Amino acid sequence: MSATPRIGVLGAGGRMGRTLIQAVHQAGYQLAAAVERPESSLIGTDAGELAGIGAVGVKVVGHLHDILKDCDVVIDFTAPVATEQHLKLCREAGVAMVIGTTGMSDAQRASLDESATHAPVVYAANYSVGVNVSIKLLELAAKVFADTVDIEIIEAHHRHKVDAPSGTALMMGEAIADTLGRDLKEDAVYCREGQTGPRERKSIGFQTIRGGDIVGEHTAMFIADGERVEITHKATSRMNFASGAVRAAVWVVGKDAKKYDMKDVLGLNDI
Amino acid sequence: MSATPRIGVLGAGGRMGRTLIQAVHQAGYQLAAAVERPESSLIGTDAGELAGIGAVGVKVVGHLHDILKDCDVVIDFTAPVATEQHLKLCREAGVAMVIGTTGMSDAQRASLDESATHAPVVYAANYSVGVNVSIKLLELAAKVFADTVDIEIIEAHHRHKVDAPSGTALMMGEAIADTLGRDLKEDAVYCREGQTGPRERKSIGFQTIRGGDIVGEHTAMFIADGERVEITHKATSRMNFASGAVRAAVWVVGKDAKKYDMKDVLGLNDI
Amino acid sequence: MSATPRIGVLGAGGRMGRTLIQAVHQAGYQLAAAVERPESSLIGTDAGELAGIGAVGVKVVGHLHDILKDCDVVIDFTAPVATEQHLKLCREAGVAMVIGTTGMSDAQRASLDESATHAPVVYAANYSVGVNVSIKLLELAAKVFADTVDIEIIEAHHRHKVDAPSGTALMMGEAIADTLGRDLKEDAVYCREGQTGPRERKSIGFQTIRGGDIVGEHTAMFIADGERVEITHKATSRMNFASGAVRAAVWVVGKDAKKYDMKDVLGLNDI
Amino acid sequence: MSATPRIGVLGAGGRMGRTLIQAVHQAGYQLAAAVERPESSLIGTDAGELAGIGAVGVKVVGHLHDILKDCDVVIDFTAPVATEQHLKLCREAGVAMVIGTTGMSDAQRASLDESATHAPVVYAANYSVGVNVSIKLLELAAKVFADTVDIEIIEAHHRHKVDAPSGTALMMGEAIADTLGRDLKEDAVYCREGQTGPRERKSIGFQTIRGGDIVGEHTAMFIADGERVEITHKATSRMNFASGAVRAAVWVVGKDAKKYDMKDVLGLNDI
Repeated sequence: MSATPRIGVLGAGGRMGRTLIQAVHQAGYQLAAAVERPESSLIGTDAGELAGIGAVGVKVVGHLHDILKDCDVVIDFTAPVATEQHLKLCREAGVAMVIGTTGMSDAQRASLDESATHAPVVYAANYSVGVNVSIKLLELAAKVFADTVDIEIIEAHHRHKVDAPSGTALMMGEAIADTLGRDLKEDAVYCREGQTGPRERKSIGFQTIRGGDIVGEHTAMFIADGERVEITHKATSRMNFASGAVRAAVWVVGKDAKKYDMKDVLGLNDI
Repeated sequence: MSATPRIGVLGAGGRMGRTLIQAVHQAGYQLAAAVERPESSLIGTDAGELAGIGAVGVKVVGHLHDILKDCDVVIDFTAPVATEQHLKLCREAGVAMVIGTTGMSDAQRASLDESATHAPVVYAANYSVGVNVSIKLLELAAKVFADTVDIEIIEAHHRHKVDAPSGTALMMGEAIADTLGRDLKEDAVYCREGQTGPRERKSIGFQTIRGGDIVGEHTAMFIADGERVEITHKATSRMNFASGAVRAAVWVVGKDAKKYDMKDVLGLNDI
Repeated sequence: MSATPRIGVLGAGGRMGRTLIQAVHQAGYQLAAAVERPESSLIGTDAGELAGIGAVGVKVVGHLHDILKDCDVVIDFTAPVATEQHLKLCREAGVAMVIGTTGMSDAQRASLDESATHAPVVYAANYSVGVNVSIKLLELAAKVFADTVDIEIIEAHHRHKVDAPSGTALMMGEAIADTLGRDLKEDAVYCREGQTGPRERKSIGFQTIRGGDIVGEHTAMFIADGERVEITHKATSRMNFASGAVRAAVWVVGKDAKKYDMKDVLGLNDI
Repeated sequence: MSATPRIGVLGAGGRMGRTLIQAVHQAGYQLAAAVERPESSLIGTDAGELAGIGAVGVKVVGHLHDILKDCDVVIDFTAPVATEQHLKLCREAGVAMVIGTTGMSDAQRASLDESATHAPVVYAANYSVGVNVSIKLLELAAKVFADTVDIEIIEAHHRHKVDAPSGTALMMGEAIADTLGRDLKEDAVYCREGQTGPRERKSIGFQTIRGGDIVGEHTAMFIADGERVEITHKATSRMNFASGAVRAAVWVVGKDAKKYDMKDVLGLNDI
């Protein structure tokens, strides 16, 4: 481990890869390496120019093994098959990983778990610092307000999202239900139309907005008579996840070989 | 008709009646009279003290006919049976009315129409100036954005409301659908849960929040890639409706015997 | 102390008094007594009718000592001179008090402190449950985000408010500054106009909206690149303070003779 | 002029250039050409890959004159000196331009005006469709509410912005002041701190939030007693300006040689 962590970015030519390169730069670190598929026309370009932040003197290369020795940690938001190969290489080289790849199979996740016993891995459902903080705030608010308020969760995402409500909205609902001893299966209300009757106190309402390219917004409302408290998280770009991933990368270098999540990175378990 | 309209308030002891008394005062007019049911313990109290604005020198009386000669216009947010009697008295005396009573039967509404041929009557589904302006704004925004945006309507009301979405939300949806040549029956989406698939451009989404004592909030979102426009109306107290009713009362004095609505009062038909 | 606390409301004819009567009713308790100035025209009216919730069988009386024996606790949001007299009577009778009177002099506050050694007194700068919870949430968010975000506080109040920012906004700013080891005197920014230069990370920005009859809204924003967390409190009526005061009244009955604040009532010191 | 306009993008390697390439694609048009500085390492890469939307078969070239014959219109959000040269070439070739370059000198703007007499040019202070619509909405709301409300404008931008309030916020304030016959120099309030006294009805308040990488948010509030109307514009990415610029590009092809702005493009002068 070097004093300043040497961070590599995989999938450097994709939108998330470019944002990760920007995030490394904004957090004040030097990019150590950048990898893209060997057949891409972007191989050989300057990774900084590619990311729109000006030349940084690091050429995009086509193979992870060529640059592993230059990295203490690599960030991987690519695809399951690629991530599987990256895990093998990093495990052998003892290089830490921060993984944000989605859609991994059970077998691929098992191989991740196994890999984490040889080199540390951060693997989180959501790398947003703000989302993780918001859930902590929700739990605290739910605890104090208890059954004196009506609780509603509103989320908004882009028009291409095919499911509702979002995973993050459901995660928030579960955090509240757990705190209050409610059962989301019984108390969640996803739909209000026609003659609904008055609201039940124990309901947890979910409203789902879809439109444009909204990255992701979530609000939990705690509504009493005469007042309400709202806890809102707004993600406005991938930078949200990218800077959380960089924070995780800096944190994980030098840690024991183990699987970690963002609660570990942010120390939220100790509050 | 006097230079300064002499305004009477019916149902003066109810919550809406008291708010109307406050609204007359805040708009800078003298309250001319206040009426409550003859059996109320509030008869004889000072109407201003009752409304919490300090004594105004007007005692609450038990019968409309006792004070009709003191009024150019009366505001009536009471109950259908009472309003029916008030209409008869005002019609005979040639006194204008502003009516916000809800739940009138067809027969009662016919008698209102007939009454309006003898003395002017303002009768509106919603006396809020803001709601009426907002609908005008929605129509304009819909016209310019047309099919380049996704349109969503979010409303919030108190926990006791038994239907969803609110009448105002539906009115907003219809205004948008009419402007864009859509059919709310086909294009309204009231519920998103599970695998919804990507959003259809022509959808008009409705989300319904219920909690606490929220008086009424409506937001229409016009969502494009990279930007959105939101038009929001927030009602925070009955004062909202009361000051619209007072504006209508001042406006209607001296007008021809006819039935009017808030678009007439606000001149929105001419914009 | 009775199983169901017997709650009296002082200043019953004022706006806050009426709201307190409503709040007692909504919280499911019986109003025990209601007091107004002896010269008011409202003496003898039914306190429930006065508050717009229908008759409750309690007549408004002109003197506190006439009804002290019927009360375990009285709620007093009146004026300093009146509160001083109420304190003497309650102290002698051993009746608990919840005091929301503002503008008390140092001498009057000393007499309150002394009184609290004979009968328990709750005395809070702000009775809103939501405001007290929000400040706790702010502290937690500030602790986790630390210097990785820009922090801004926005408040809105009615047009008659003569000072800015609100006391609550400043309380929020101090809670954040204390958590982060900053000094509000140095780091607060109340004004941005003209060539301001880029924002300093340590600044805590205050924005102040004034208009209409807005009861009170406060938002604290924690703004990172690509995301932000907002904690918002909206008060929409006096009911906000009234229901907090009733919660305090129920809590304080049977407690030791001492001065308490809302953190005690809500148990926020133990979280 | 071809049936489908052939659109070229200048400054294709910059952040705005890449967003323009995405916007052309999203609007359903074929990119015709892409230009970047001849010394850039990006020359020869595929413009679509560069923009993160996959290969589109258009190589980035180093000189505008090489691709002018392939374009009906070019979009130029570069720098004043570059734009000056582009204007000369387009004028001679009769190619339309959409110009979003900022910081042009008086001489450069004069040369733009002159150029527009030979080939059509769109030149707007703000290409956002939403901002232009919002200003129209503001004017309408101000007209109906007139002096019955308090008007406040709140804006939020990123931490690097060096001036306050934003040009767009001031534009909104002027639109309101013009509609109401007020003078922004007298009626604007940029700062509230300490003993401010009650609000003046004629004031137009400006509040300025600075933090993170907020692209740009503006809200105008029309605040009455008991209700308010808010008109909000949120820009969440450069796509906001890019898609407005593409809309302008499609519109301007085949128009007379003249200088146009976004009101012309959107037809807002006719509403």
